Amino acid sequence: MPDLILTTFDWVPHPPRGYVRDLRVRWALEEAGLPYRVATTPFGDRGAAHLAHQPFAQVPWLTDGDLSIFESGAILLHLGERSDTLLPTDSATRATAIEWLFAALNSVEMASLPWSILKFSGEKEDTTAWKQLDGFLTKRLAHLEAILVAREWLAGPFSIADILMADVLRLVDRLGGLTPFPTARAYMTRATARPAFAKAHADQIAHFAAADAAGLGGG
Amino acid sequence: MPDLILTTFDWVPHPPRGYVRDLRVRWALEEAGLPYRVATTPFGDRGAAHLAHQPFAQVPWLTDGDLSIFESGAILLHLGERSDTLLPTDSATRATAIEWLFAALNSVEMASLPWSILKFSGEKEDTTAWKQLDGFLTKRLAHLEAILVAREWLAGPFSIADILMADVLRLVDRLGGLTPFPTARAYMTRATARPAFAKAHADQIAHFAAADAAGLGGG
Repeated sequence: MPDLILTTFDWVPHPPRGYVRDLRVRWALEEAGLPYRVATTPFGDRGAAHLAHQPFAQVPWLTDGDLSIFESGAILLHLGERSDTLLPTDSATRATAIEWLFAALNSVEMASLPWSILKFSGEKEDTTAWKQLDGFLTKRLAHLEAILVAREWLAGPFSIADILMADVLRLVDRLGGLTPFPTARAYMTRATARPAFAKAHADQIAHFAAADAAGLGGG
Repeated sequence: MPDLILTTFDWVPHPPRGYVRDLRVRWALEEAGLPYRVATTPFGDRGAAHLAHQPFAQVPWLTDGDLSIFESGAILLHLGERSDTLLPTDSATRATAIEWLFAALNSVEMASLPWSILKFSGEKEDTTAWKQLDGFLTKRLAHLEAILVAREWLAGPFSIADILMADVLRLVDRLGGLTPFPTARAYMTRATARPAFAKAHADQIAHFAAADAAGLGGG
């Protein structure tokens, strides 16, 4: 029995499929070749049992023996400590991978997530709010573009930092935001061409398709 | 000579004073009693020397011997590995502190930062953008409020998770966003009543006041 259990929703509507954050963890687990199984929590009713593992009513969480960990960044860091495929052991390279793990979340996704919320809500592109948040994202992506010109991966070898950064960029690209940043787009394409991403992505799509077939979320 | 050097801006305008992110690092260093010195980088001209340490043209960064680390979360995690005052060594408590470090940044600040950008830009509170992003923050704070009812600190003993969460909440409170969340507000007040916060905050204010006195940023 694998001792790693990844919990995600039992079902989600179609639009987020392929982008639910269990993908980041599946991808890392596939890169590392760590055995795991997938468990589910109801999408509809996020009660006390859910909140005990994920206090913001989100997914995923990972259990590893007695530990239950939420936050995709924390989960990837934990897995990185179990696998030098995910996080280099040399102290300088390791520090670089960890700072870029935080940068993917806090310098890039912190700008891209609110931007994507406005995009999905159909915000008009001439409002002050749009201009503020689009400008915030554009500046961050311009800095990232400059960094990626000289790097195949963020910290030397491929690492958890690239899993997070590429997954953050995927959603920006889906919404048209990477067009002015060809280097960042090529980086994202290079990362998602990895077999571990393809497996993780196909598994997530199949997981929610099986939920449809089982009649979950229907009615 | 201390081997820890914290770099922040040489000067900033008045509004962000007391909130520049070197505060998080100063606070952690004061809690741990680690000796350090403060170095500066120009606020006005953020050139190649700056970008070599902080690729998004922000502050702070920390150098520790040969290592140079950016991202406040990564810096606090690094300091946590040097001090069990900042990060408990027991593996379960340590994992909890690390997941809450990420949660402060990615579940709360990811919602509060865009909200604060709209607040500062004078966004009208009847726009769709405001409602979307205010609703996003309100949901996250409601979940945090429920957690804090039963906890003095996020991971048992005070840790780097509390430094980040309290500092994130300070800006929300400054902009009026904590009024509906008395438990979160009391938590923030409890955290910022610690002597290490008072020292860190006074030092940041004094640092920028000295820059004014030296004629920086003037003209």
